[in-house]
Amino acid sequence: MPSATVRLVDGMQFVGTSASGHAIVMDTTEDVGGSDTGPRPMELLLIALGGCTGMDVVSILRKMQVQFTRFEIALDGERAPEYPKYFTKIKVIYKIWGDVPEEKLKKAIDLSLEKYCSVSNSLKPKAEVSYEYQINPT
Amino acid sequence: MPSATVRLVDGMQFVGTSASGHAIVMDTTEDVGGSDTGPRPMELLLIALGGCTGMDVVSILRKMQVQFTRFEIALDGERAPEYPKYFTKIKVIYKIWGDVPEEKLKKAIDLSLEKYCSVSNSLKPKAEVSYEYQINPT
Repeated sequence: MPSATVRLVDGMQFVGTSASGHAIVMDTTEDVGGSDTGPRPMELLLIALGGCTGMDVVSILRKMQVQFTRFEIALDGERAPEYPKYFTKIKVIYKIWGDVPEEKLKKAIDLSLEKYCSVSNSLKPKAEVSYEYQINPT
Repeated sequence: MPSATVRLVDGMQFVGTSASGHAIVMDTTEDVGGSDTGPRPMELLLIALGGCTGMDVVSILRKMQVQFTRFEIALDGERAPEYPKYFTKIKVIYKIWGDVPEEKLKKAIDLSLEKYCSVSNSLKPKAEVSYEYQINPT
């Protein structure tokens, strides 16, 4: 069972510790009592989604013996206008550099977002998750 | 609009950067090609949930002029048995030390989880989020 603990340090600064033993600082903006010493919790959801689908895609591409030298993901979230301001839409933009056949990249992304990625599937269908990809963008 | 970027460093290690300018390392276990240099993406969801509801609860308790000296949250997640292994249940256990009236704590938690917390409301209703609280636990 995944587990975590979170502890108030001071102001709005919290330190979270994962079951795997890694610590993360979270904080918020000064106008709501924070000190901006770490990411906002909602930003962590986008980062977690990027890490999750990123690990899937590189794992699948490596199994397909696709050669690439660089791999990045940009994520944009749209939130409900009123409280609770949950994510309604998340756009995932995959950027990869190398000798990457488009159909293999697309297959890897679809397998991740539909079948394997626990984070995207924790946020769907409340958030509509869509994607784009760019091969060797300048 | 919240946004983030995630970049592959090596193996399964990714560094995420939030729009607010903070970086987070993510990684996975060695049996799937990782080096355990950071939390798993699914652990980040639990940490984000703890930070989100934690910030709400301390903010509400401070407005109620409740005095407390220490505040922690433990989170446990249950996942679907088959891929995609999204969260089906999350238990949030609030622990607070101080002169804390139970009805004020309960009201603060309910306001957070039902009305204000963007993270819990991004994960519900796919994940059933329940809670307990402990005042001055030993």
